[in-house]
Amino acid sequence: MDRDRRLTRLRHKQVTELPRLHALLDESLWGHVAYADERGEPQILPVAIARHGDDLVWHGSTGSTWLRLVGERRTVAVSVSSVEALVVGRTRFEHSLWYRSAVVYGIPRRLAGAELDRALDALTDHVLPGRVAETRASTDRELAATLVLAMPITDWVLKESREWPDDPEPDRRTDVWAGIVPLRQAWSAPVPAPDLTESVPVPPSCRRLVKGDR
Amino acid sequence: MDRDRRLTRLRHKQVTELPRLHALLDESLWGHVAYADERGEPQILPVAIARHGDDLVWHGSTGSTWLRLVGERRTVAVSVSSVEALVVGRTRFEHSLWYRSAVVYGIPRRLAGAELDRALDALTDHVLPGRVAETRASTDRELAATLVLAMPITDWVLKESREWPDDPEPDRRTDVWAGIVPLRQAWSAPVPAPDLTESVPVPPSCRRLVKGDR
Repeated sequence: MDRDRRLTRLRHKQVTELPRLHALLDESLWGHVAYADERGEPQILPVAIARHGDDLVWHGSTGSTWLRLVGERRTVAVSVSSVEALVVGRTRFEHSLWYRSAVVYGIPRRLAGAELDRALDALTDHVLPGRVAETRASTDRELAATLVLAMPITDWVLKESREWPDDPEPDRRTDVWAGIVPLRQAWSAPVPAPDLTESVPVPPSCRRLVKGDR
Repeated sequence: MDRDRRLTRLRHKQVTELPRLHALLDESLWGHVAYADERGEPQILPVAIARHGDDLVWHGSTGSTWLRLVGERRTVAVSVSSVEALVVGRTRFEHSLWYRSAVVYGIPRRLAGAELDRALDALTDHVLPGRVAETRASTDRELAATLVLAMPITDWVLKESREWPDDPEPDRRTDVWAGIVPLRQAWSAPVPAPDLTESVPVPPSCRRLVKGDR
């Protein structure tokens, strides 16, 4: 893959610094994987994702048809995006969103053995930091039932858009409001499983998550 | 498009009732569009989406290369998904997400004239209900600069997953916590544009959005 990933328009929105890509990936719990199926038709699936060093990883059941297919060296495009605000213009035309949008392109590989185990732990600790230390190791049976794909983060494009409405001059002189309404993801109080022993307390990982100490 | 969209596994998660699809689409501000480019490689882009009657619509600039390409009768898969909770298992293996995930397949068409104008208003009022009534009509120049795609909502698949961790019996007898941590999108106080006349008040549409009265 050596395509030129420069944007053809709105180039000022393109970000080429790797740490900014890492920041988006590290804050995001899931992304969308697109691929062309055997008939050449587009397919798309949401998946929990994590950055694991220089790789992007995701997983599922070994029984998953699409994961097995994609694991056979098929090219994918993985989108990870985050919307941070609604942009409210004085004109309908100037309404938009503040967002960050990354697409990572590549050919994923199937992991095995210790590499698979480590990638799964990275996924668990990415979604819920500290959870690996609170749980027992995965069994061989659990690992054998899990398919993990990894893809190097080398061919990617990142766009960041945080612009105010650019309404025409006559509209700026009206009394129509313009601005942004910020949007965020909010965790709320943990709910115990129906079959949980009553005396078991909410663990530190979940308490930190709700407090926002990710 | 007359593919059999029945899931090949986890069939209990498949939902076939159209109102449930509409509910997800109507609550979602954006989705991801996947297509195969001229080289057959997968491409994916996040877009603001809205259900407009029996169509899914999205828009962008007439200068957008990918929108023009997709508008030339190219098959797309549009994913709209929502994560509602993190599922915390007693075992790493049983961690997952509560989610709803829809994919709508089809060949979008470019709208023009009054149809384009109406679809844009539907998009504006979808993202910020009531905003159309608060803003002037779009000018011919604004409409001419906007490309709107519409796709019938006829070929689709919807999965809903809201399951508690199914840890093995020995793990259920330990003192490891299990349950869910709910996740939601939260709007916060509107921020005026830097060039807004000070006396212009926040409009009802934005006040309702923040209060959650969508």
